[in-house]
Amino acid sequence: MVCIEIRYGGPMTYTAAVSGATGYAGGEVLRLLCGHPDVQITTVAAHSSAGQKLGALQPHLHALADRDVVETTAENLAGHDVVFLALPHGQSAAVAAQLPPETLVIDAGADHRLESSRAWDAFYGGEHAGAWPYGLPELVVDPDGRKQREKLRGATRIAVPGCYPTGSLLALAPAVAAGLVSSRDIVVVSASGTSGAGKSLKLHLLGAETMGGMSPYGVGGGHRHTPEIEQGLGWAGGADAQISFTPTLAPMSRGILTTATALLGPDVDGARVRAAYEAAYGDEPFVHVLPEGQWPTTKSVQASNHVALQLAVDPHAGRLVVSVGIDNLTKGTAGAAVQSLNLALGLPETTGLTAQGVAP
Amino acid sequence: MVCIEIRYGGPMTYTAAVSGATGYAGGEVLRLLCGHPDVQITTVAAHSSAGQKLGALQPHLHALADRDVVETTAENLAGHDVVFLALPHGQSAAVAAQLPPETLVIDAGADHRLESSRAWDAFYGGEHAGAWPYGLPELVVDPDGRKQREKLRGATRIAVPGCYPTGSLLALAPAVAAGLVSSRDIVVVSASGTSGAGKSLKLHLLGAETMGGMSPYGVGGGHRHTPEIEQGLGWAGGADAQISFTPTLAPMSRGILTTATALLGPDVDGARVRAAYEAAYGDEPFVHVLPEGQWPTTKSVQASNHVALQLAVDPHAGRLVVSVGIDNLTKGTAGAAVQSLNLALGLPETTGLTAQGVAP
Amino acid sequence: MVCIEIRYGGPMTYTAAVSGATGYAGGEVLRLLCGHPDVQITTVAAHSSAGQKLGALQPHLHALADRDVVETTAENLAGHDVVFLALPHGQSAAVAAQLPPETLVIDAGADHRLESSRAWDAFYGGEHAGAWPYGLPELVVDPDGRKQREKLRGATRIAVPGCYPTGSLLALAPAVAAGLVSSRDIVVVSASGTSGAGKSLKLHLLGAETMGGMSPYGVGGGHRHTPEIEQGLGWAGGADAQISFTPTLAPMSRGILTTATALLGPDVDGARVRAAYEAAYGDEPFVHVLPEGQWPTTKSVQASNHVALQLAVDPHAGRLVVSVGIDNLTKGTAGAAVQSLNLALGLPETTGLTAQGVAP
Amino acid sequence: MVCIEIRYGGPMTYTAAVSGATGYAGGEVLRLLCGHPDVQITTVAAHSSAGQKLGALQPHLHALADRDVVETTAENLAGHDVVFLALPHGQSAAVAAQLPPETLVIDAGADHRLESSRAWDAFYGGEHAGAWPYGLPELVVDPDGRKQREKLRGATRIAVPGCYPTGSLLALAPAVAAGLVSSRDIVVVSASGTSGAGKSLKLHLLGAETMGGMSPYGVGGGHRHTPEIEQGLGWAGGADAQISFTPTLAPMSRGILTTATALLGPDVDGARVRAAYEAAYGDEPFVHVLPEGQWPTTKSVQASNHVALQLAVDPHAGRLVVSVGIDNLTKGTAGAAVQSLNLALGLPETTGLTAQGVAP
Repeated sequence: MVCIEIRYGGPMTYTAAVSGATGYAGGEVLRLLCGHPDVQITTVAAHSSAGQKLGALQPHLHALADRDVVETTAENLAGHDVVFLALPHGQSAAVAAQLPPETLVIDAGADHRLESSRAWDAFYGGEHAGAWPYGLPELVVDPDGRKQREKLRGATRIAVPGCYPTGSLLALAPAVAAGLVSSRDIVVVSASGTSGAGKSLKLHLLGAETMGGMSPYGVGGGHRHTPEIEQGLGWAGGADAQISFTPTLAPMSRGILTTATALLGPDVDGARVRAAYEAAYGDEPFVHVLPEGQWPTTKSVQASNHVALQLAVDPHAGRLVVSVGIDNLTKGTAGAAVQSLNLALGLPETTGLTAQGVAP
Repeated sequence: MVCIEIRYGGPMTYTAAVSGATGYAGGEVLRLLCGHPDVQITTVAAHSSAGQKLGALQPHLHALADRDVVETTAENLAGHDVVFLALPHGQSAAVAAQLPPETLVIDAGADHRLESSRAWDAFYGGEHAGAWPYGLPELVVDPDGRKQREKLRGATRIAVPGCYPTGSLLALAPAVAAGLVSSRDIVVVSASGTSGAGKSLKLHLLGAETMGGMSPYGVGGGHRHTPEIEQGLGWAGGADAQISFTPTLAPMSRGILTTATALLGPDVDGARVRAAYEAAYGDEPFVHVLPEGQWPTTKSVQASNHVALQLAVDPHAGRLVVSVGIDNLTKGTAGAAVQSLNLALGLPETTGLTAQGVAP
Repeated sequence: MVCIEIRYGGPMTYTAAVSGATGYAGGEVLRLLCGHPDVQITTVAAHSSAGQKLGALQPHLHALADRDVVETTAENLAGHDVVFLALPHGQSAAVAAQLPPETLVIDAGADHRLESSRAWDAFYGGEHAGAWPYGLPELVVDPDGRKQREKLRGATRIAVPGCYPTGSLLALAPAVAAGLVSSRDIVVVSASGTSGAGKSLKLHLLGAETMGGMSPYGVGGGHRHTPEIEQGLGWAGGADAQISFTPTLAPMSRGILTTATALLGPDVDGARVRAAYEAAYGDEPFVHVLPEGQWPTTKSVQASNHVALQLAVDPHAGRLVVSVGIDNLTKGTAGAAVQSLNLALGLPETTGLTAQGVAP
Repeated sequence: MVCIEIRYGGPMTYTAAVSGATGYAGGEVLRLLCGHPDVQITTVAAHSSAGQKLGALQPHLHALADRDVVETTAENLAGHDVVFLALPHGQSAAVAAQLPPETLVIDAGADHRLESSRAWDAFYGGEHAGAWPYGLPELVVDPDGRKQREKLRGATRIAVPGCYPTGSLLALAPAVAAGLVSSRDIVVVSASGTSGAGKSLKLHLLGAETMGGMSPYGVGGGHRHTPEIEQGLGWAGGADAQISFTPTLAPMSRGILTTATALLGPDVDGARVRAAYEAAYGDEPFVHVLPEGQWPTTKSVQASNHVALQLAVDPHAGRLVVSVGIDNLTKGTAGAAVQSLNLALGLPETTGLTAQGVAP
């Protein structure tokens, strides 16, 4: 018997160059692309490690063990349909400028996430490269419930969101957009696996320092993800959003658990909230509003593009508490990149992202 | 040469009975008492396991390996100077009533923590046993800075605080007492090691379920520690304290990292806040307000009665963020019990609690 | 443009029933089958939990959240092309006997792994169900290098190997088959993640008991995997194989690191050993003999069907030391099941198993 | 009432200088000395970090937070009763030579562990400083059962054993000394927490690399602890001891689980073995031969000087399997140092080491 499968669309495969290939973000992009039927990993680049085989640096990517790592230069990145950037601050714009305008450039760094130059100056400094379409398709970006997704279709430039903003924005945007909570005096506390800090040789990131304990950092409003969260909530209708954001480091490799709280408007109860979230996310392939009574675990979405979310209304405190679990490297970084790529290239949005969570 | 040490005071040693000896809280009490020069562990009791040797159930307590575990009955607990209770809800009062009034009874359970019958009914149910002196010596209990310590001197009944309230109250009481923050709309998110749930054979507490991930629980105001935190802040002067409290489970055995935020009053800056905390805790042997720039880690206080605390003022969000690390079993439970015992018996407060944190 | 893909072969999809669907092994089978293009998960069954939705029990399997769990009965398992069994000892044969002979029955339990009734009696007891084709395709099963793979093509009954034997056999069979080491006085020590013990509510498997420490169990030859390892080495030519096997429990969810040592024959050096392993595994899609100097990590193969292996010759001790990393649930259980299914059904062997390792 | 305690002996306190104060070994020495009634920590030194406060570098040592870290120079180390060295290879002898002969010098490094210059050359290279008394008091050092302890009484130079040899030697020496096993073809596999590698900024030691997985290293006889283990067994009567030793890295901060196997002599059964170990260790304060059926866990001895040991005879494999749990930093390093100090200074051997294991 002969089975025939007919697919409509563009070229069979898109060629991709992935920079930062030896880091955690780049490695996760490569891991996902290995399973993407329409993308061919053509070039793997890094700013150091050039000349080595990828297998020595990313031993889990068995299919790419024999790939040569080349230097991250405009020359090496040119000539591909898609280029993934993971460069130090301030460098993406320059590199992108040297690539043909029809190249799909996806930036995992922060350079193109913020619209506001003032926010860029306050939190990052240096030249503000300007904003590219923000790679969070499920983000509710106006009170009528329209999604960020529409801005990614056919895009040629994409800014991958920060990992913490991903969880925080998915947690809060529907309630903000529906006017169910105030966008002022939002308090978010997140716990992240240590891969979020990158392959950085710092004392506090050693296994012996991190295993078995937790600690906060970047406390007090200085964390760079604060303006990014406020920006996203602003799109959702939360004028002058104001967040207290505290990140903490948890003794795990992957995952972010976000606890986001917002002041409930008058006469807002659990049913109205749940209805708003089910309206916002009910049709989403990756965002799951859990059945009542089931709490999100980061393990349930580990190594996948899925998002687990639960709502709780605290009438005594007058707050909505939204708990969200994501994988910081997948939905928080590389999964978002691939999902946005699919939209940009007109492919089915879930292509290459169909893996379930890895548990236990 | 002969060295002579002269000690003034009561009997050389106090006899102690420890119930719940096979659980985590009871085990931690025993671990600390093994190193307490003035307390002799006379009786170890548990509600099951009677007849076994303690070494089979608590293999880390080498000095007590050969002790026989007896049943937790009033008879077995009688005849000691000190009795530590770790019983299911509603049972402590009955047992304590059968002990001589001069016995020092220290209850690790919740039965005697709350003053308000209404709060007891709402969160626990069943008969309200009434409140015993609350075993958190460093708690600022009035705006003049007086401490709970004074209520523990010479006490014969002590209620050991809950682990989460310990971190939350130490985090917030000085600011509330000094009028620097509002006691309303406080938001606390805590991450705890799994020993906080006890030696409970529940699926979600299995190693394969907990390792490598995080999850929230008891979200939305229903957690029993909420009224306890509000009560403590009320003592500190925070009338009608109102907390949104979210506990989360972290992939570690021990430790609680508390992130507590409160709305800053007008004209309150970091210097005023730091001054208030240094005034409150500067002379405390166990509570350490860290130098600026140093973040508290739960590892730095692991297995010890120490508390690591850091302050951050977020002018943008208008909130004070206090981060506190404790060990849930030590300062959060058994260390508090022993510290309170020392005060009750008129011993130096740090007796048996001088161990440093265990790191890495 | 229209792209046409032509596939030759049997039916588009095979229907599958998976029992033990709520446990770790069954859950891993389901996770892999979700990504298998030729298998349709028709029925999910468990011996308890019948009547519940799978999403409540296996929250990481988002695609199957709404599936009803049915009871594990012959009736419910009938009518499928493939049936995965994960039943308590002694039950598989009876269930399989009630299924049509052309059904592909894959048993994750131990019942059909051992050929020897004597070994079955000594280590398991109860009726010996007899052996089914052993699901370890890469196992060298005779000195000429033939592989177990051939016995799986077109099979209708498959016994999935035990997780520990998988690592141990892959570690040693090539050297034994090539006559480079003695099959007597082999010493193996393995460290496994706790998911290997199943979703078992036992004290020693609690997170608080397992996190941060290690312990051995089943020491002294009594472990049921000993005869299984010896049987496999016997197939490879190791007459009267004799293993000292010690399993240990490691503080991680997944993974097995196997350290296998065997006495080197005369004049056997590292080059001869490496040549034998490269001959045995060089063409294997899943087993990777690492470049010299690179040590296998269980993370590099996490959640994948890959195997990382490294060789070391210790001339001083006269032993070959082979280190092997696998994921106990994937290559150690469900991946082996799917890989064997592919062979049995005549599908490309790697179908549904192309995922890279999940790291970090 | 006045209680009088009379103590006989030398000075009330001995002054100590601790070098490597900012590393894990030095930090553990300090942690233990904080609780040693007879030792006063006078000087804390490190090769970098001079000029900083210790609290910034070892935040868990609250009692020493305000200490100034000085440079590790002979001048700074002079003038103390006890000097703890933790220096890079080859430097201890030179520093010790500049200290008065009556100073007790305790070297945590490897320089003075090996008697054989040939072994030193083969495994370390550089000048062989010669051996100092080996700091493992419980080591059986001749077939009559005499212990290494006697060589430490009154010593002025002590070489602290390596962490892996501690577990391996305690595991095997009694059986070797009693002639119950062969000292040839011993196979040891150990799993260690990552603190064993020190505060070393290396990629493979990052939390994201180590959490959730295991890997071997130093496989094939090259590990420097091999000659040390063979030396110790030689003292116990194991002429020409020959070890295959494989270390593995486990996802925990502290602990070593040692699995040591040796070929049983003829007619050696479990009872004879148990009798030999109980004779060797029955009176030891720190080494515990567990009751039959109880397996050692590294958690049961965490952060303490205790050792948990269990025996298993495997008649099928003809091997004795000894499982030993220690804490690599405590009994494996600093606890051994303090225990040896007590013997050297004529203090009760358990002084400052009475802490129980920290579990959970």
